[in-house]
Amino acid sequence: MNNAPTQAKLSEAKTRGTVRVVGAGLLGTSIGLALTKAGVDVVLDTQSPASLALALEYGAGRAATPSDTPNLIVVCVPPETTAPIVARELAAFPGAFVTDVASVKAEILEQLQATGADLTRYVGGHPMAGRERGGAISGRADLVVGRPWVISANAQTAAAAVTALETLATDLGATPVHVAPIEHDRAVALVSHVPQLVSSLLAARLADADGRDLALAGQGLRDTTRIAASDPAMWSQILKANAEPVAEILEDLAADLNEVIAALADITAPGSAQEVTRALEAGNAGVSRIPGKHGATATTYATVVVMIDDRPGELARLLTEVGQIGVNLEDLKLEHSPEAQIGLVELYVNPNSEAALIADLTLRKWRIAA
Amino acid sequence: MNNAPTQAKLSEAKTRGTVRVVGAGLLGTSIGLALTKAGVDVVLDTQSPASLALALEYGAGRAATPSDTPNLIVVCVPPETTAPIVARELAAFPGAFVTDVASVKAEILEQLQATGADLTRYVGGHPMAGRERGGAISGRADLVVGRPWVISANAQTAAAAVTALETLATDLGATPVHVAPIEHDRAVALVSHVPQLVSSLLAARLADADGRDLALAGQGLRDTTRIAASDPAMWSQILKANAEPVAEILEDLAADLNEVIAALADITAPGSAQEVTRALEAGNAGVSRIPGKHGATATTYATVVVMIDDRPGELARLLTEVGQIGVNLEDLKLEHSPEAQIGLVELYVNPNSEAALIADLTLRKWRIAA
Repeated sequence: MNNAPTQAKLSEAKTRGTVRVVGAGLLGTSIGLALTKAGVDVVLDTQSPASLALALEYGAGRAATPSDTPNLIVVCVPPETTAPIVARELAAFPGAFVTDVASVKAEILEQLQATGADLTRYVGGHPMAGRERGGAISGRADLVVGRPWVISANAQTAAAAVTALETLATDLGATPVHVAPIEHDRAVALVSHVPQLVSSLLAARLADADGRDLALAGQGLRDTTRIAASDPAMWSQILKANAEPVAEILEDLAADLNEVIAALADITAPGSAQEVTRALEAGNAGVSRIPGKHGATATTYATVVVMIDDRPGELARLLTEVGQIGVNLEDLKLEHSPEAQIGLVELYVNPNSEAALIADLTLRKWRIAA
Repeated sequence: MNNAPTQAKLSEAKTRGTVRVVGAGLLGTSIGLALTKAGVDVVLDTQSPASLALALEYGAGRAATPSDTPNLIVVCVPPETTAPIVARELAAFPGAFVTDVASVKAEILEQLQATGADLTRYVGGHPMAGRERGGAISGRADLVVGRPWVISANAQTAAAAVTALETLATDLGATPVHVAPIEHDRAVALVSHVPQLVSSLLAARLADADGRDLALAGQGLRDTTRIAASDPAMWSQILKANAEPVAEILEDLAADLNEVIAALADITAPGSAQEVTRALEAGNAGVSRIPGKHGATATTYATVVVMIDDRPGELARLLTEVGQIGVNLEDLKLEHSPEAQIGLVELYVNPNSEAALIADLTLRKWRIAA
């Protein structure tokens, strides 16, 4: 964990007045939780009494009442219902700014323009955070911490609306990023929507596979297919609203895929092996362009791997001693499998602490993996 | 962690005699390191003096000498050179069993059959472990711990050769799995080779992308493209040697991809949205079939998420109390970000223990995240 002096606390929220959150799914609940913890008055409104009850129990806010006078309204409903609900909220609360969290922005803006809504008080938003598990049950106060929060103003958006959303995003620990609706949709087609579909198409190969083959699955398959567990109903709405940019990228991918298939089908022909190598090299070039974790500058921690006996209390004993040694733990991963007699604990520390930690742990008879 | 009595320790290796490791890349170095730690005499032979020097410095064994009399030889060289080097080793060491670690098995066996090598002493192998970073520099003694190690005997392989490889795999903490060469290649086409190519093709989309678009990248993109950083030279050899099974699966994927593209290109047409939903649902079905961590049988653990203050020692204190409560921790994940004042600790426990653990932790004033 981090010892560094805390520069900004969630408890010093700059958001003023009441925030009204419409919808109590993953994002609504998470935003409500985080704002409530930060001392902001949150009122929750949702069509589902069960979701509302759960969100209230979580501490994500209080139930909306007719006398609420929110300054800011955050619409956290599925993409297809976002525009009508934003329009309804703009009309019902003429003194409030309204934002949303939908994964697509251009189509929602078009729909709103068609309603004649007061777009000066609307500013589109998209916190770049999600989980493959949705719903209030997965809500958590830190969901957007360290993530980009896209602020997608339209031509009429008032500056004060932009400021209100910037303040909210910052209060929640996210990083505001200004992107116009069409540019946003093109970007998320590339970094989110296409990866979702490709992961789903890849995972679909496994549906009828032999269980013995699947027993050989390693981390590569798990990583490439993790998001294939996402909610189809939600994602088909997103993809429908951003179909054209997604289709364009997929067409390029299909062309490359067909070349690779042709090369593999006649692998001894001149040029075939090089074609496969080229595809792999292009992948290298692409992945190298992804910025560090959470879109922030990559931070490199040193990793110290400790092998611990597979018995209760060993991990606690290790961490107690790491604390005694006085090294800050930045992150921790546990690798453990039912078959193995040992567990592997990856301790992520500041590179400056690495040598001393290894020396001290070795002195204390811990086994450091090479 | 598991309470089961410890059955075998790395320090009680059952492998007898000298093990000769040919090649000092990721796998050769890792196997040498682990065997040396377990007290086995390891001799290293490699064409590259630089790799040899590094592997020796790591403690992965001693340099090979003309007087070595290995019982077992592990050939850890790229796929294309595996068969000739296995044949050379079989001829040079008539008293030794020879295995390899290549990611393809059928073509290597065919090549060996063509050489007239003594196949009674050869048993194919494939430890299902790797990293996107290769080379001796990435070697680690725990590389294969908890992973399946495919043992791929041919029709002539002596039972004693199979036993020698089983013993080696078990000594290194891996789980031996018996799979015939052709079945192995079909299985890894599905769980490893196709995911590699798909990840590369997906990542290739990013090569010419706008940096501002990439700043919005989240965990989904990172997970789906992580293995696209793998070595193209190594992977093109693997794919070349397993081209047909890989091409077959990719053809199915291409057919599905084309249907999705057609649906997205005319998304308002009847049936288009359903086509996209079907693709996402097929992904759900596929990913649900991947067994639990490290290829073991899928076990569903309950997850208890505890919010801890971001200060040193809190995690150790929590785990100490979990130990006192007497609940077995099956796995643990720490979610922590530099900006947040709290860390989230996900405790994975047997579902039967969940309610009691939540009750006891709550009594002890730990905050359970909903």
